[in-house]
Amino acid sequence: MTRGLFITFEGIDGSGKSTQAKALGAALAKDGHDIVMTREPGGSPGAEEIRHLLLTGDPDRWSAETEILLFTAARRDHLEKVIEPALMAGKTVISDRFADSTRVYQGATRGDLRATVDTLHDLMIAREPDLTFIIDMDPATALSRGLARGSGEDRFEDFGLGFQTLLRDGFLDIAKSQNGRCIVVDGNRMSDDITADIIAQTIALL
Amino acid sequence: MTRGLFITFEGIDGSGKSTQAKALGAALAKDGHDIVMTREPGGSPGAEEIRHLLLTGDPDRWSAETEILLFTAARRDHLEKVIEPALMAGKTVISDRFADSTRVYQGATRGDLRATVDTLHDLMIAREPDLTFIIDMDPATALSRGLARGSGEDRFEDFGLGFQTLLRDGFLDIAKSQNGRCIVVDGNRMSDDITADIIAQTIALL
Repeated sequence: MTRGLFITFEGIDGSGKSTQAKALGAALAKDGHDIVMTREPGGSPGAEEIRHLLLTGDPDRWSAETEILLFTAARRDHLEKVIEPALMAGKTVISDRFADSTRVYQGATRGDLRATVDTLHDLMIAREPDLTFIIDMDPATALSRGLARGSGEDRFEDFGLGFQTLLRDGFLDIAKSQNGRCIVVDGNRMSDDITADIIAQTIALL
Repeated sequence: MTRGLFITFEGIDGSGKSTQAKALGAALAKDGHDIVMTREPGGSPGAEEIRHLLLTGDPDRWSAETEILLFTAARRDHLEKVIEPALMAGKTVISDRFADSTRVYQGATRGDLRATVDTLHDLMIAREPDLTFIIDMDPATALSRGLARGSGEDRFEDFGLGFQTLLRDGFLDIAKSQNGRCIVVDGNRMSDDITADIIAQTIALL
């Protein structure tokens, strides 16, 4: 059996990546592909338990280093229990966030921990998506969207515009350094236009 | 202020290490030392939350790799929040289990993961105790004691005598390779005799 394709969506909160991930999944499913939709942090029962530790309660109770370990533990579980089995069965896996989010959120913004994030990834995950869509978005617009949504879990939104801009730059840096895998999509357009763009790029790869 | 002493107790379940840790703590406190008693996994509020993930529910829901990441996350939190602040304040910290337990339980018994455990330790913990007492004990006796206690958390006891023997050998190997830090204590004696031995060795170091 041909191994399935692993596609991830990345971007700042409020960039519309979850909406676009779902739209791509629906389009590919309609086209006859076997799709597994998932998300991080979480995505498997064990990883969801770890997500609960990370996203509820006082977020400041974890240092950046402990947080990176917990995100990596959740990702390892998600990879073993959901992503790898699906890919092995020839399914297409679409994940709302994956390792790039840890590289940006923990690696670039909470002290200079990018090297630690990379070493942990190489040691315990050692897997990259086949294709990553980075939804690029004006940070001010994304921030107002995220705040309006108010999920109670997006704690990074509280840090304001300067922080969102730092995150956006982090994602664009990853896109530049891994341009064989990452496609930057202009998210400052009508949602349907963005979806059409993403579907076209995915079909070209399939 | 002089940095405090960091003492750990290691050994298989049922070896009496918790009893001996408490006895040493009581003796040193009586002697005027400022003592912090702690334990792993856990020892800080965040690490206790992670302990709960590891020791309740179906233990088989975590792979060895995910488990190592969770133990390391708990240890990092314990170190930052409890151990280091106490040592900096000149206190003596006595911990029932620390990194040697992960080296033995996860590194030596669940596949060949010792190199992974060591790399993670060097990257995220990078701290050894000043003194480690390894309570060495006949595995059959220790096993029967552990089973009688039935805490509901010592899931390794279910694996039987062969497994306990493997663990014991793992601890003795560590003692051999780190003999500047580890003291092997014969646990097949009356409890008071073991305590007297441990107190004498600790006072020699203090």
